[in-house]
Amino acid sequence: MLNSTFLSPTRLIIGANTHQQAGKWVCAYGGHKVLLHHDSGYVKQCGLVDEISAALQAEGLEVVELGGVVPNPHLELVYQGISLCRQEGVDFLLAVGGGSVIDSTKAIAMGLPYEGDVWDFFVEEDSIPHAIPEKSTPIGVVLTIAATGSEASNSCVITKADENLKRFCDNDINRPVFAIENPMLTMSLPPKQTAYGIIDIMSHSMERYFTPEIGGNELTNRLAEAIFFTCMTCGKILLEHPDDYEARASLMLASSLSHNGLTGIGRTGDWASHFIEHELSGDYNVTHGAGLAVIIPAWMKYVYRENLPLFYRWATVVMQVAPSGDQDTVIQTGIARLEDFLRSLGAPVRLGELEGVPALTEEDFCRMAKRVRKVHPDGSVGWVKQLNTEDIVAIFRLAR
Amino acid sequence: MLNSTFLSPTRLIIGANTHQQAGKWVCAYGGHKVLLHHDSGYVKQCGLVDEISAALQAEGLEVVELGGVVPNPHLELVYQGISLCRQEGVDFLLAVGGGSVIDSTKAIAMGLPYEGDVWDFFVEEDSIPHAIPEKSTPIGVVLTIAATGSEASNSCVITKADENLKRFCDNDINRPVFAIENPMLTMSLPPKQTAYGIIDIMSHSMERYFTPEIGGNELTNRLAEAIFFTCMTCGKILLEHPDDYEARASLMLASSLSHNGLTGIGRTGDWASHFIEHELSGDYNVTHGAGLAVIIPAWMKYVYRENLPLFYRWATVVMQVAPSGDQDTVIQTGIARLEDFLRSLGAPVRLGELEGVPALTEEDFCRMAKRVRKVHPDGSVGWVKQLNTEDIVAIFRLAR
Repeated sequence: MLNSTFLSPTRLIIGANTHQQAGKWVCAYGGHKVLLHHDSGYVKQCGLVDEISAALQAEGLEVVELGGVVPNPHLELVYQGISLCRQEGVDFLLAVGGGSVIDSTKAIAMGLPYEGDVWDFFVEEDSIPHAIPEKSTPIGVVLTIAATGSEASNSCVITKADENLKRFCDNDINRPVFAIENPMLTMSLPPKQTAYGIIDIMSHSMERYFTPEIGGNELTNRLAEAIFFTCMTCGKILLEHPDDYEARASLMLASSLSHNGLTGIGRTGDWASHFIEHELSGDYNVTHGAGLAVIIPAWMKYVYRENLPLFYRWATVVMQVAPSGDQDTVIQTGIARLEDFLRSLGAPVRLGELEGVPALTEEDFCRMAKRVRKVHPDGSVGWVKQLNTEDIVAIFRLAR
Repeated sequence: MLNSTFLSPTRLIIGANTHQQAGKWVCAYGGHKVLLHHDSGYVKQCGLVDEISAALQAEGLEVVELGGVVPNPHLELVYQGISLCRQEGVDFLLAVGGGSVIDSTKAIAMGLPYEGDVWDFFVEEDSIPHAIPEKSTPIGVVLTIAATGSEASNSCVITKADENLKRFCDNDINRPVFAIENPMLTMSLPPKQTAYGIIDIMSHSMERYFTPEIGGNELTNRLAEAIFFTCMTCGKILLEHPDDYEARASLMLASSLSHNGLTGIGRTGDWASHFIEHELSGDYNVTHGAGLAVIIPAWMKYVYRENLPLFYRWATVVMQVAPSGDQDTVIQTGIARLEDFLRSLGAPVRLGELEGVPALTEEDFCRMAKRVRKVHPDGSVGWVKQLNTEDIVAIFRLAR
């Protein structure tokens, strides 16, 4: 276990009808005038936003609404949000939705007290930002999809659409003060979205579980494995019974616990799969969960020998492959079972299965590989195995 | 999953030499004048208290020391601490030690801003206190034993020695702002103390895991099971290798995560074993971990049929008994394996094995059973099975 510090200050409020408590919690956290932020989509049409607005006003709060968030939320709307909040004297922001809405809210919250340009805080992965946010505005979330974990994480991803730049601000200042998680709100999600959400949740703990520390660590191994088992068990249940309350509730909680840092305490983690997937998504408009389903198994096949004990443990404990002296076969069988699981959810597991993506060539692989953000001084990425451009091309080939 | 709210606002700072950061963290949390509280024992003799005092002063903090905490900390010392803090203008309290020191610190912290008697906040289990604390003083912890979880919990237990009254104040206001967890500080613990600490850690999640909700819930089942596996794996390692850093680090983190509420999210839990053990401890001065090792298996034997799926899962998944249609035998075998594990740590698993306890009679059982705090309106205790006096006597008989 590496020296580390862990703090997850987001209050998780879980259960049926909890969205009705939104006003109570905004008041508890000192809000008076609330920006109610959403994507103008189903949450508005089905009346949820209006219900929450009424709940806020019933507690004496004033409400200003701003819809229009798109997937891969845009800086332009963030700027609009900041202006609106300044004009209206907003002192609390409430996101109603999933990761895109939450991230847009986080960015507005950071920009509100900042005299400069909020884009100063955003960088390519792991480089140095122009400025570090020193304060933010309190944010709450009414979560409508179990997926990104942004409701309890320190991450924020914003796209500057005119330059097609997607940038990151990972700062604990971003962590919402509360996240209301009503599993009923996730029951109407289409199966594909549910599936991609599950893959996203699972990936956040896989990136922490797979680490250079040989064998990992018993406790944090088990905590991440708790997330893996939950994703697989609940994923299977929801295929047949999309209204299963326990499965939906477990996945909402798993979403938060998988990306708040709990499963990575004292571990280096890896994250190369996310950086590689970022390029695929960026070039071909691939849904994040679909891209991860294709990249992660390929990455695993490429790097597992760097930490045989840990990958062997994962294959036997999590994927329940029978133990054997032939560790390579056990691990490869485990990865095959992972692919089976992903397929069972309706996800692609090969590049050729990605919707809307043409047949990719070696040139495409090289182009994307070169652009993958480099983390280490030698230009490589990842920690289980430090991957250079050739390694990344090899992973794309394995994913073909 | 029942509707619930979860918040663990304690920052966990884990790793070798982290106690040297005490001053930095006190400053970060706004302290200026610190009460350094301890038990005047090994932590003082070995120089740790003085090292921490120097670290605090190096950050410009003023330090006031108060030793003298005893196991089952006394109200009398709490009163002394409150007077001292008022006299000295203390605005931050730092506990250096284990559960007793932390609880004494929590009580002083609550009493400091309160005009009445801090004992007003303390009750027998689950009854209504005279007063509810509305504010406290910030507390930090330098943890020296992985056991009670008080470093991240909302609980505080204080004894009024002259009346032999042991009372509780469970309030989120008690949660420390930070807990520094240096595994090196736990390496010199005698094996018995290490063992009883492990049992205490395990019990906090057992009381949350064993719940009336049939089968439990996949995610929180797995989170509690992560604690169980860690306790058993690391417990075995430390028998042979008491200096194993990973095992010590895992247990410190497990201590905090087992009692901060994480493993009980959305579950009722039980706690009857703790209430029963409280009477045994009180009458016979039994170490908490030893008492739990005797009571918990007996309780399990008595109640398991109330939630066969959950106890069966525990026996097969955690105690790794081979699945079979004969659930009773599987569960009983699991309990026997638990007893084997407890014995392997050097713990007693029968009343007759408790040090310093005479042979107990039916009269002793009845006397203690009648005094067990009642939780339900009908006078029973526990939730998996609501136990009346006869049930508790039966459990004592099973523990003989």
